[in-house]
Amino acid sequence: MKDICIALLSDFGSRDVYTGVMKGVIARQAPSARLIDLTHDIPPGDVRQAAFRLWQAFSYMPWGTIFLAVVDPGVGTNRKPIVICGNGFSCVGPDNGLFTYALRGKGATRSVQIARLRAKSSTFDGRDLFAPAAALLATGIDLAELGPPVAELVSIPWPHLTSVEDQGVIHGELMFADRFGNFVTSIGALVAENVAIRWQPWVPGCRPLEVPTSRLRVVISNGVEFPLVRTFAEVPEGAPLAYIGSDGLLEIGVNRGNASESLKLTSGMEVTLAWQ
Amino acid sequence: MKDICIALLSDFGSRDVYTGVMKGVIARQAPSARLIDLTHDIPPGDVRQAAFRLWQAFSYMPWGTIFLAVVDPGVGTNRKPIVICGNGFSCVGPDNGLFTYALRGKGATRSVQIARLRAKSSTFDGRDLFAPAAALLATGIDLAELGPPVAELVSIPWPHLTSVEDQGVIHGELMFADRFGNFVTSIGALVAENVAIRWQPWVPGCRPLEVPTSRLRVVISNGVEFPLVRTFAEVPEGAPLAYIGSDGLLEIGVNRGNASESLKLTSGMEVTLAWQ
Amino acid sequence: MKDICIALLSDFGSRDVYTGVMKGVIARQAPSARLIDLTHDIPPGDVRQAAFRLWQAFSYMPWGTIFLAVVDPGVGTNRKPIVICGNGFSCVGPDNGLFTYALRGKGATRSVQIARLRAKSSTFDGRDLFAPAAALLATGIDLAELGPPVAELVSIPWPHLTSVEDQGVIHGELMFADRFGNFVTSIGALVAENVAIRWQPWVPGCRPLEVPTSRLRVVISNGVEFPLVRTFAEVPEGAPLAYIGSDGLLEIGVNRGNASESLKLTSGMEVTLAWQ
Repeated sequence: MKDICIALLSDFGSRDVYTGVMKGVIARQAPSARLIDLTHDIPPGDVRQAAFRLWQAFSYMPWGTIFLAVVDPGVGTNRKPIVICGNGFSCVGPDNGLFTYALRGKGATRSVQIARLRAKSSTFDGRDLFAPAAALLATGIDLAELGPPVAELVSIPWPHLTSVEDQGVIHGELMFADRFGNFVTSIGALVAENVAIRWQPWVPGCRPLEVPTSRLRVVISNGVEFPLVRTFAEVPEGAPLAYIGSDGLLEIGVNRGNASESLKLTSGMEVTLAWQ
Repeated sequence: MKDICIALLSDFGSRDVYTGVMKGVIARQAPSARLIDLTHDIPPGDVRQAAFRLWQAFSYMPWGTIFLAVVDPGVGTNRKPIVICGNGFSCVGPDNGLFTYALRGKGATRSVQIARLRAKSSTFDGRDLFAPAAALLATGIDLAELGPPVAELVSIPWPHLTSVEDQGVIHGELMFADRFGNFVTSIGALVAENVAIRWQPWVPGCRPLEVPTSRLRVVISNGVEFPLVRTFAEVPEGAPLAYIGSDGLLEIGVNRGNASESLKLTSGMEVTLAWQ
Repeated sequence: MKDICIALLSDFGSRDVYTGVMKGVIARQAPSARLIDLTHDIPPGDVRQAAFRLWQAFSYMPWGTIFLAVVDPGVGTNRKPIVICGNGFSCVGPDNGLFTYALRGKGATRSVQIARLRAKSSTFDGRDLFAPAAALLATGIDLAELGPPVAELVSIPWPHLTSVEDQGVIHGELMFADRFGNFVTSIGALVAENVAIRWQPWVPGCRPLEVPTSRLRVVISNGVEFPLVRTFAEVPEGAPLAYIGSDGLLEIGVNRGNASESLKLTSGMEVTLAWQ
């Protein structure tokens, strides 16, 4: 129990005390749990971005981590509050697809609806249900004590990714930008090499494939073209580039610049990778 | 001592190292104290908002929590640095009314002026006085060792709240918006039902009263009217609503929208709740 | 090992999960390390500001603190990943001058290049090299096990500071503003009194010198003049002032205002202190 981590992600921002209140609730019930903030700056109600950020962080957390994620535009409706347990992790949050990406390929899980706890308010299940459930998990409660099993979880659509096999062309989409203005795409490193229709998550311990960059070309829907290189420094300052980012996905950026702003990129724009 | 929490609130923001420096000072003297950030994004010098945020978080922190709050526009003047101890909590910060709301109804307290410690600077008592005092409290120092008793604390005015009993009308004010643009008002859940002149804080463990919403009408000073409902989902997307929020206070919002921005709301605007 | 602090500073901001991922990596390898965030809001790639913020926080951290700093515009190039160990502290990060200011006057240090660890990506050494190296240090690894010694570290220029001795004039520069709009300058408290060419860091335990303020005048390059006083309250609200700030450096501000915005101050502007 000593070493259980609770990793928090929400759209609560930093100006309110919502996150602090959840931490207080946890500290009361599970004082030895260790808290790690993933981010609380998910845009309000953006479940898909939250799912993506959870996926990015998921495999780097310690064994046994409890992921407490609250991006919950349906709070107060009949969407279920849930707990999902798998091999070496648990997830606590609303059943709205938040965990769709993180759980892919993680094997068998058990899920229950949080029915034992009662909300004091119709607007803050993070405080009333999710934080207490995470704290109970941290103290070793049996999953079945929290509520009845849930047969099927809500999921959100996969990122867009198609290929035209005989033409060696992949169509993906821009996912989300980071603080530096670099945009992660839905095209994985293996996909880029294999021209296969796969959402290929980063495999910890593996190095990015040695992509024969001279054979590949990256274009986004507004016509901007990017050379595929290994590092930012391979292009001049201010020049665009595509590269395999730290999640094992194709990313596009501008060396020492902000690609998102200077190229007016937005989530959902199409990106094409083609063999020449 | 192991389990003592120190809950931090300030207007230091996140781009400077002020908060980190306070944590370092604490870690030196009280290495086993557990730190919980409430928020550091109080607008600079906004003592009233800080007092409100402290009130929101106060009752959710573990027994024995030390509240270290630094919103201190009078730093360097003769305003007193103080410690307040009550049953199961302590407060450390400037004597400018910061703790007015949080301490209401908390019973007897003892207060001392921090006189034993010396500031190395005239502008950062958080580092020089408040963090060291909180660390000393966490290690079990007797309150009297910090300095002489303070007879009377500075307080700030209560939020505006009046009623016209025979007309069944309550006048309150908009307090502060959260990240989602929802605005908390000064009208409590009990007030709404009883048409009583009370600042009714949220009582942990109690559920919001079953307000007979069809009999109540909410209007703000710019003329916008809000139906009083239980959850956001009871009104169409983009429509305004009033509801009892997670603090037990009347709040106004817009379903899947930002009420603060779209309705141009500001702190201090009058809100009226009337029986029909 | 129990009490080892790791102090984190980066330009990762708060909307991505980069910081959370580094914390997860640390928690896996060094679960009992205590993490203190200094700031993650350094402007992207601003090594000089990062170096200054590290200097501000450095001497307030507990003995043995490991400073994990990642502001790394050269990630993916051949700049070295390094560890620096001194008496009671360690630094982990890119060899780009980040630690130049913090290490000044700290005595002998040993430095190694992180060669034993392998990056899985060319863009996130914080996750792949620096966090693991910090965790290994926290668990007591010998420095030599991380890689070969580094003979000479990259450094960045000192802040501008010159004096015209026979005229009793000091020329310095505006360094960085804090959240309140107060601007720290490169002129130290001792310099102000001695008219000496020194970058005089704050000495913990010493009080700011008793500067005979009536003899000193502060002017910035746009012509605005500031009286040198001890506290904000000595000038009317809205009026500019110069004072010795909490780092022991001359600062300029506006009482209950934002000097940076209202006086259009920018980093690098010249500030002159003259005896009258």
